[in-house]
Parts: sequence; structure tokens; C-alpha cells
Amino acid sequence: MNFKFLQLKRIGIDTHQEPVVYMRKDCHICQAEGFSAQSRVKIILGKHHIIATLSVVTGDWLSHKEAGLSEVAWLLLNAKEGDKATFAHPRPVDSMSAVRGKLYDQALTQESASAIINDINQGRYSDIQLAAYITACSGQRLSIEETIYITRAMVDSGQRFNWPQERVLDKHCVGGLPGNRTTPIVVAIVAANNLVMPKTSSRAITSPAGTADTMECLTDVTLSFEHMNQVVTHEGACLAWGGSVALSPTDDIIIRVERALDLDSEGQMVASVISKKIAAGSTHVLIDIPVGPTAKVRSLLMAQRLAKLLTCTAEKLGLVVKTIISDGSQPVGNGIGPALEARDVLQVLKNESQAPPDLRQRALTLSAALLEMGGVCCPREGLALAEKTLNSGQALTKFLSICQAQGGLKELTLAPFQHVVKASKAGVINSFNNRIISRLASLAGAPNAMAAGLDLHVKCGEKVQKGTPLMTIHAQAQGELEYAMAFLHEHDDAILICEDTVL
Amino acid sequence: MNFKFLQLKRIGIDTHQEPVVYMRKDCHICQAEGFSAQSRVKIILGKHHIIATLSVVTGDWLSHKEAGLSEVAWLLLNAKEGDKATFAHPRPVDSMSAVRGKLYDQALTQESASAIINDINQGRYSDIQLAAYITACSGQRLSIEETIYITRAMVDSGQRFNWPQERVLDKHCVGGLPGNRTTPIVVAIVAANNLVMPKTSSRAITSPAGTADTMECLTDVTLSFEHMNQVVTHEGACLAWGGSVALSPTDDIIIRVERALDLDSEGQMVASVISKKIAAGSTHVLIDIPVGPTAKVRSLLMAQRLAKLLTCTAEKLGLVVKTIISDGSQPVGNGIGPALEARDVLQVLKNESQAPPDLRQRALTLSAALLEMGGVCCPREGLALAEKTLNSGQALTKFLSICQAQGGLKELTLAPFQHVVKASKAGVINSFNNRIISRLASLAGAPNAMAAGLDLHVKCGEKVQKGTPLMTIHAQAQGELEYAMAFLHEHDDAILICEDTVL
Repeated sequence: MNFKFLQLKRIGIDTHQEPVVYMRKDCHICQAEGFSAQSRVKIILGKHHIIATLSVVTGDWLSHKEAGLSEVAWLLLNAKEGDKATFAHPRPVDSMSAVRGKLYDQALTQESASAIINDINQGRYSDIQLAAYITACSGQRLSIEETIYITRAMVDSGQRFNWPQERVLDKHCVGGLPGNRTTPIVVAIVAANNLVMPKTSSRAITSPAGTADTMECLTDVTLSFEHMNQVVTHEGACLAWGGSVALSPTDDIIIRVERALDLDSEGQMVASVISKKIAAGSTHVLIDIPVGPTAKVRSLLMAQRLAKLLTCTAEKLGLVVKTIISDGSQPVGNGIGPALEARDVLQVLKNESQAPPDLRQRALTLSAALLEMGGVCCPREGLALAEKTLNSGQALTKFLSICQAQGGLKELTLAPFQHVVKASKAGVINSFNNRIISRLASLAGAPNAMAAGLDLHVKCGEKVQKGTPLMTIHAQAQGELEYAMAFLHEHDDAILICEDTVL
Repeated sequence: MNFKFLQLKRIGIDTHQEPVVYMRKDCHICQAEGFSAQSRVKIILGKHHIIATLSVVTGDWLSHKEAGLSEVAWLLLNAKEGDKATFAHPRPVDSMSAVRGKLYDQALTQESASAIINDINQGRYSDIQLAAYITACSGQRLSIEETIYITRAMVDSGQRFNWPQERVLDKHCVGGLPGNRTTPIVVAIVAANNLVMPKTSSRAITSPAGTADTMECLTDVTLSFEHMNQVVTHEGACLAWGGSVALSPTDDIIIRVERALDLDSEGQMVASVISKKIAAGSTHVLIDIPVGPTAKVRSLLMAQRLAKLLTCTAEKLGLVVKTIISDGSQPVGNGIGPALEARDVLQVLKNESQAPPDLRQRALTLSAALLEMGGVCCPREGLALAEKTLNSGQALTKFLSICQAQGGLKELTLAPFQHVVKASKAGVINSFNNRIISRLASLAGAPNAMAAGLDLHVKCGEKVQKGTPLMTIHAQAQGELEYAMAFLHEHDDAILICEDTVL
């Protein structure tokens, strides 16, 4: 009896993206191979194989002849109940030595960067190895050369679009500014002017909503490669989730751990952005860098450094990048959270009177630059063209067509639990702490609960009385509402009111 | 129906030290609190509470009224079947912001270091947060000040011994040299001279055996605080596992993740060493730093830097540290792995003819220095006293007494699977790659399989013929033996033979 296989059992445990295998300590595989808790185990089933982390089972719910698989492991192996899989020690992950070397200031090479990205892409890194890689690359530790190596490796790791047009536009915002949801508006304006803009967006990393999360409230964003191709061919643009079309798939694995660590690596971020643009087949990209004391980028110097890193990396890889450094001192629009931001976007596209003017203005500025980059108007004429496109309803029409092509427009829903936060004293709104505001919206449930988040009722410089509503917290569950309120109670600098001493 | 509790169920899953809770996605707690896969969940049961990582269950084996707990979660909560526990969102781990700050070169303060160590000690860090902390501190990124802060925090996090004697001795080896198991011999020689040496050791981090692993083959090392106190009071010394007496308990949590990452942080290592010595109540400590091209410390410069870091940190905390820089070019003794090293130790203590002379010599050198530090002989007379103690059998008698006091002497066992590796050509043994040798012993199953490891049959400078046995691989399982052999096949620089061109 020296069978090297066990029967696979789907045990219905969701471990997120880390594959986990459950085996009895006293099964013949654990005994023969010397596996113990937390061992990394290679599982082979037909043409598929994965590396999973072992949880050792001592209970009776699993037999000696069975191996239980977590949901992601089950799906990756394409398993069927009772399938017989073989088990082995995986090869040690050689590229981890390059991560270790990086900690001792040995720069990454194209070869080592490609090996790391390839290993991550193949699921060979455990969660803690991913955490070590992300940490090793954070804090401005990646040079421009290393960033270029990683970017190239990430482009090579996924699918890539090729469009017939000579100029293919794209935009990106480095984030950190709650509610700054210009992308859907910009895409609509640009595409309404017959330019091509195959926009793929990511989900939130450390923020309460990414463009993909917001767009998911309005239409399908999980498009196949073919479906996205079709939408862009017909509409000139799309608003899809990048993860679904497997552009730079490694990025989604990395982002999950970055989110849990609440940590961004500058170089890794540049690689993530540029690789996705190249994979999307873009040629001309506009990048918005909001700067503010509590934004992701806090000083003009940091913004300029980042702009240089982005343009240099892009240039080496044959991409034209233009950066815009914008005001990042306070949240944009009123809503923060997927559905609330989607509401703001629709209000702007519909030219409604209650549409947030700051969101509208930012979207117009970015659209103007893209229209000029796209060559459909002369320099300095972009803004007028953008305004005309938005005011005339052409942008709305294009937006609805895109949603239709992606699967139809969805109704927005309202969260069942709400709480109005009121001013504790009279005065003038002095500042917002973007980080606290983002955290608050996250604790209220965004982006997992689509309708959750914040609705802001004031802007910097506004006068308020004691009791004036400052914002409404929206939550899908009572527990989340309470948690957000407890957090707000401890952080009274979310919205700072300066008492008006002149009165 | 808005009960905030679920009934606890022990489901017999060993997730190592990370507590994991299993809950149905559609149970009222997940719905009310908005928990999803990988959420961090606070579980409260009576006086106990823990933070666990959530695995969401979709299968039928867990009901809506139950929450399953992994073994470590069950033990930490001190739960009984059917206990009703309440669930809540944990506070965000505030000290992680200091870890993030460290990545941007913001130095740790005493306050932030204490907060980090306290949070780790309370189980508030997830595995990936631990990985980020360890990575952030690696690669010589901790200053002496930061190392002192962490050391102090680690001392404060656990229990501490107080001995009546004025001088309390201790030794430590920074490791990296396979088979360098001098500690049991040194402790026996020192204690036989009526000096106090309450030795606590750690288990292997990235090596195939730690002193605690080796000693566990010979006697109990998992002593309670009271038991260790008793042993030292009677015998003047002990050879215990540091983790069991909860000296610097944070260290064991950190070591587990370091081991999985195969990563040591210099500053963290200094903090780990010094904090354990202080907690053990030591006043005078000798630290052995082996230097060699494939040892942990690779150059004299690195050794001197480390020696300075160790002595400075110790001095600030009131501890006298003396360092010895030793030859780390090749493995010490013959055995590598817990039981094989224990065999070597006994041979030296018994003055057997086949006892490895290099192990004996290193143990004598270290003992000599400690006898002098302890003031039982004049300077330069330590070596003669050490030799006399060993040769006369006094050291063996003391060693057996210590083992007896710790629970009795155990028989050594031999691994059932063995493979002799032979020289592929004639020549002279030129060098050992310590890292490959260690890895090989680990892959053969050490230290988890006690009897697993390597038995070396040659030393540098020896002449060999084609077919001369170089080493024997010992394994507890066929799979591990095969895995080690496959690894050796790919790494032919484990033992380098130089062809003797003169012949």
C-alpha cells in the first residue's frame, strides 16, 4: 500500500485566494511525505497542479483516504468530487532568494523580477511570502530600472489587447482622494468624440471604492477578454474590471495582500499602472496625481518624483504618459463608496442641478487633456469640446450605450442603515482628513457592501451652525454602522471645524 | 432574533499558531457584522478573547448556530464544546502604522516598539502583518537605539527569572553553522564548577536543529517556570526550551514566520537574544559568532558589526556580553539534525574515541571563557580547568543530573531510511556549503523528524577516492529521503572535491 493519491473532497471553505488543503495527520501521504501544519504541498490532478498550504485535520469529518480542498483550490484544480490527486513536496521557491537579496540592497534584475512575478502568477508564493515581497519593495526601495523590470514582467504574465487604431487613450488616478470618481465621465466624453479608450480599472486597494467597484453598481464589469474586445470595437470604449480580462493577473494577487496590509509600494504601484495600460493596448495615457496633506501623495516633491517615475518607466516601454498634478486637499463629490459615487457620476452625466460641481470640473479638465492628446481638437480647445460633449447629453448617451453593451444598466440601491453626523459647534469647515474619511467609509462596509459609505454634505470653507448635518453614514448591517460610529467617536479630526472668532 | 453569540465547535483543524474561526456566510453574525473571508474577528468567551482570521464555510458540516475553531484558537480561548462566544470587529491594529512608517525611514521609538511587541504578543498581528514587520526590520534597517527599544519591549512582554547569585552565566551562538551543538557540553562543564547557568534555548529557525530540538532527544525541555526554577536551584543549570517558560514569548511567534520566510533580521535577532538572556536572569553572557563564506555571518566586518550591536544593546540594558568570533567555514561535529547532534554531544561528554574532536575543542574554548567570566579561575587558566572537568567525567555526571532533574534521560533513535552519498571522483575535500548542507538536512525532515538529518563522514582537507562515503542522509519517511536526494542532485556544491592534480 503505497498509493500516492487521495480522493478530493469539496468541503466548502472560502480561504479567499490562498489555496488550502485539509489532510489528516495520520493519512499515508502526510506520513510518507512528512507534511505538517503550514507545509506547502503540491497537488497534481491531470493537467492541473497547484501549491496549497496544509491545514492538518484531527477531527473525524475527513477520512484517511480523502483530502479536503478550499474553494479556490477546488476551482484552480478544476476538480470533481472523488477525483484522485497525487501529492508531492513543491520545489522551494527559488525567486524568494531575490526578495531576500533585495532586503540587503541587492537590486532586482530583469531575470529575477521576471522569476518573482512568474512565481507569484503561478500561485507559488504563500501569503506571507507575498507580504515579504510587497514590504521589501515598499518605501521607495525600487529604482526606476527595477520598476521597469517588474513592469515588463507583469505585462508578460497576462493577456494583451491589440487595437487597430494608432492612438489608444487611457487615464489613471493614483488615488488616495475619496470620491474622486472621474473615470466613467471622462471615458464617456472621450468616447463620444470617437476616440478609443478601452478602460480597465482595479477594485479598491486601501480605499472604500475603486472604479471597478463603482461601475459594478451600474453594469457588469466582469467581462471576458472576448466580450471586452467586442464592447470596445462597437462603442470605442468600455469600463471593465481589469482582473476579469486577466490583464496583468499578478496584480490582483498582490493587491489582495497590499489591501490587508494597508500598504502601497510606490514602484510596485507604478509597475501595476503601466503594465495594465500596456496590456490594455493603450498608447497615450493621462495620469492624475492629487496632492494634499492627507492624500496618498502628500507633497509636490513626492508628486514630481512619482510623475517622473511614471513617465520614465512608460517611455522605456513605448508608452506616452502625461501627468496632471491636482488639488487633493478634500474629498471630491458627495458620495464615498461604490453606489454613492455612482449616483454622483450619473448626476454629472445627466447635468442635474444637484450634481457635485467639483467632480464635474475635474472630469472636464481630464477629458480636455485627453481630447487634445487624442488629436480631435487643437491644443487649448479641449475644455470647450469636453463641456459641449457633456452639456449636450452626448456623454450620457455614450455612457448608457457602454453600459448596455456590457450587460445593461442596473438600478442603484440605498443602504438600509443610516446615521446623520452633525456639527458639534458653529464655525467654518477647515479641513477633511482623507485617510480618516476613507477608513470610516471602509468600516461602514464599502466596498464589499456596495451601498455602504458616506454622503458628505459640506465642503471646505462652508459656514455651519451647531447641529448642521456634516455627513450621513450608510451601512448594510447594523454592526458595521456601529463600528463606523465608534471609530468616528475616536477620531474627531475627520472633519475639522474652526470656530469663527469674528462673530 | 439578534443574538450576538454562536456555539463553539472544536473541528480539529491545526492551523499552527494563527487562530482561525470557521463561520457560515449566512449566519446572523456574518450578516450583521459584515464579515467575509479573511476578515479579522474578535471572539470573546468569558475572560478570554482572541483575534482570529475568518474562513467562510458554505458546506453543511457547520450549522448557522455554530462557529468552528482551529486548535490554537480553541486552546487560547480555553473553550469547551458548546460554549457560547460573542463576536465583534477587532480594533484596527494601531501599531501597524509604526511598521508602515518604518518602511518610510521613520525610526521606531520606545513607545512604538512597545506597542508593536505588545500587539504581537496579544496575537493581534495576522501572519501577513508579522511578515511585513519582520521584512521591515530586516537587512540592517534597525539602528542600535531601535534594537534597544525592541529588546526592552520583549523583556517586558514575558516572565523573568531572578537568581540569588551575583553572577549568572549564559552563552549563545548566532548560528548558521550546522552541527555546532556546543551548548549542552558547555553548560555541563560550567555547572560542574558550581557556577549558575540557567540555559534556555530556542528551536531551529532556518536551521535543521536548535539546541532545544537536540536536547529534546535526550530529555524533556518543555519545562514550566516553576520546574525550571527548581532544576536550576538544585543543579545550578538547566537546558530548557525558552518558549515553554514564556521568556520573551513574542519571540516564538516571530520565529515561526521568520522560519517560513527563511529570513532573519539582524536587529530582531539581537533583540531576541538579549531579551531572552535578561529574562533568564543572566548577568554575564558569552556569544559565539562563527564566520565563514556560507555561514550566517560571512565576513569579519559583519561579525564585528554584529558584536558591537550585541554588546552595546546588552550594556544599555545592564548585561555584560563578551563575543568570540570563531571559524565558520565548515560544519562542526558529524551529525546534523536533533538526534544525530545529540549523539555527538554524548560522545564528547563520555570522552569516547570516536567523539568529534572539533566539537570537543569548540566546547572547551567557550567553557574556558565562561569559567573565567564566572570568576572560578584566573584569566588564562580557564582552558585547563575546562579540560580537567571534561576529562574527569565531572561534566558527564553533571549533564546526566540535569537530564534527570528535567525528567530523565531518553534513548536516542535511528531513522529508518538512510542513503549513503559517495564521492563522485577522487581528490581533496575543498569546502562545504553550509547553507546547502542545512537545507539538505531540513529537507530530510529535521528538526520535525528528530532522527532525520545528515551524518558527515569527511572534513575539509581530507583525501577521498571515488566512492568514498561523504555522508549518510537519514530520514523518517521515504518521501523526505527522496526529496533530499533530488535536492542534492541539483546542488552538487554541497561538498566540493578538488581533484588532486599532483597525483
